[in-house]
Amino acid sequence: MSKLVIVGTVAFDAIETPFGKTDKILGGAATYIGLSASHFNIDAVAVSVVGGDFPQEYLDLLSNKNIDTSGIEIVKEGKTFFWSGRYHNDMNSRDTLATELNTLADFNPVVPEVYKDAEVVMLGNLHPIVQSSVLDQMSSKPKLVILDTMNFWMDCALDDLHNVIKRIDVITINDEEARQLTGEYSLVVAARKIHEMGPKYVVIKKGEHGALLFHNEHVFYAPALPLEEVFDPTGAGDTFAGGFAGYIAKTGDVSFENMKNAIIYGSTLASFCVEKFGTERMQNLSSDEIHKRLLQFKQLTQFEIELT
Amino acid sequence: MSKLVIVGTVAFDAIETPFGKTDKILGGAATYIGLSASHFNIDAVAVSVVGGDFPQEYLDLLSNKNIDTSGIEIVKEGKTFFWSGRYHNDMNSRDTLATELNTLADFNPVVPEVYKDAEVVMLGNLHPIVQSSVLDQMSSKPKLVILDTMNFWMDCALDDLHNVIKRIDVITINDEEARQLTGEYSLVVAARKIHEMGPKYVVIKKGEHGALLFHNEHVFYAPALPLEEVFDPTGAGDTFAGGFAGYIAKTGDVSFENMKNAIIYGSTLASFCVEKFGTERMQNLSSDEIHKRLLQFKQLTQFEIELT
Repeated sequence: MSKLVIVGTVAFDAIETPFGKTDKILGGAATYIGLSASHFNIDAVAVSVVGGDFPQEYLDLLSNKNIDTSGIEIVKEGKTFFWSGRYHNDMNSRDTLATELNTLADFNPVVPEVYKDAEVVMLGNLHPIVQSSVLDQMSSKPKLVILDTMNFWMDCALDDLHNVIKRIDVITINDEEARQLTGEYSLVVAARKIHEMGPKYVVIKKGEHGALLFHNEHVFYAPALPLEEVFDPTGAGDTFAGGFAGYIAKTGDVSFENMKNAIIYGSTLASFCVEKFGTERMQNLSSDEIHKRLLQFKQLTQFEIELT
Repeated sequence: MSKLVIVGTVAFDAIETPFGKTDKILGGAATYIGLSASHFNIDAVAVSVVGGDFPQEYLDLLSNKNIDTSGIEIVKEGKTFFWSGRYHNDMNSRDTLATELNTLADFNPVVPEVYKDAEVVMLGNLHPIVQSSVLDQMSSKPKLVILDTMNFWMDCALDDLHNVIKRIDVITINDEEARQLTGEYSLVVAARKIHEMGPKYVVIKKGEHGALLFHNEHVFYAPALPLEEVFDPTGAGDTFAGGFAGYIAKTGDVSFENMKNAIIYGSTLASFCVEKFGTERMQNLSSDEIHKRLLQFKQLTQFEIELT
């Protein structure tokens, strides 16, 4: 079985949307990535850190989804990373109400020995130095390294960010972040500039407008499934990335054509994530449901024009 | 050959974008719709009104593209409708600098006798009473009536708008207008409410994010081609509608599957329109170029997932 290393936060989230609010619930990039990647029958390990306050039942939940939690350090005397946010009515923007780094402040990720030759590495949004340190630990060059990041690191650790971006194959970034990173409004031009920074593949996430994959002169555009109701967008980007990484790990095929499929799987899984609060929908998602939604995606986007 | 009636403005536009500005140039919904539909080898007539100031060379330009101008009334003592606008840096919003209705204020469209049995009618953005009056003139029920409109009529002629919307088959509307018309943020719910107003097909234009086609529970999403540079968005929506209407008129097939293709043709043609100021690009567009871009659209959106 292919191995996938997932690095990112495992956290408590408290979320407010127009539909309601939650207490502290399970969250974090590695959590969403893992739950999404768990659908591909691969050897996935989560590399993260939590405090002594983190419930065993959450760790069990991940283990039961075949996500190896041996890479999650438990700092008994520490507290788990906590994020709280409130979404605006249009669900496209949010205010951060609280960010308590806690144990994440001193996070030194350790890749378990048996995963150091993993084929695929998914670096969730973290300080770029922390992301780099994971790559330093790999014993062989992974087939594909995927990196997610955010505007925060562009504001306060841009040099470090550039240093890790040089070393990766695929960057996933949202449209505003792509514009900030490059100073270019056109996403076509922005993607070209990001290519020049290192990544051969650039995935630009556009939320309800879908996702774009750029590879030199090649472009693929996967729309998002139009939904009746977005309940909670938290984790959608990570769920997308987890589906992408999981599908690549499973197939072992890093061709552009196969990455299109990875994008479709990522979009499909993300479309479930937003249907309920937090990870709830991803905890209860059958392969039959995924299969049906993939068919919906085909109907949504595929056409038959006779081009002579 | 199938007949297409195009009703809309034929106008002077003056446009400012970050790339430059124009004097009064050829514009108007019927102009863009006509230039786009002219690629489908159909009998198209433009129904409109201009003043004595409208140059014969512009009429000749339309005639040379096989757009019948016999439906364009020339009010010798009047002036042609004039619109002027300035686009913001992101090209997604604009300010109207001037709107001079002139002869358009008293426009009474007259459908030439020979077109009263046309298979397809494309009602460009105009006062809904004017749009209705065109339908009153048809001698037989058209196979498909497509209507474009805008927020202005929702603000000041909503009842009239509802009256004409009842009578048509396809509405093309942008995302903000769909939300305004229905009071619903979700485009899925908005489309359902518009279905209830009459149209069996709802096309929601999302600019750089593409276009959605809704028909009951069926949805199709055509992304827009990501462009290096949008030079001037003026007329893109009308060019899209003209491609849609032209393709339906040519094929005579109003099935949902064929409408997907019409959406792709519309998106393809619109992607050219924005490359130069005003109608310039549409005046010089070969079928070979269209064919190549259709292939680009296929590569952009089509994927091959084995679903067992």
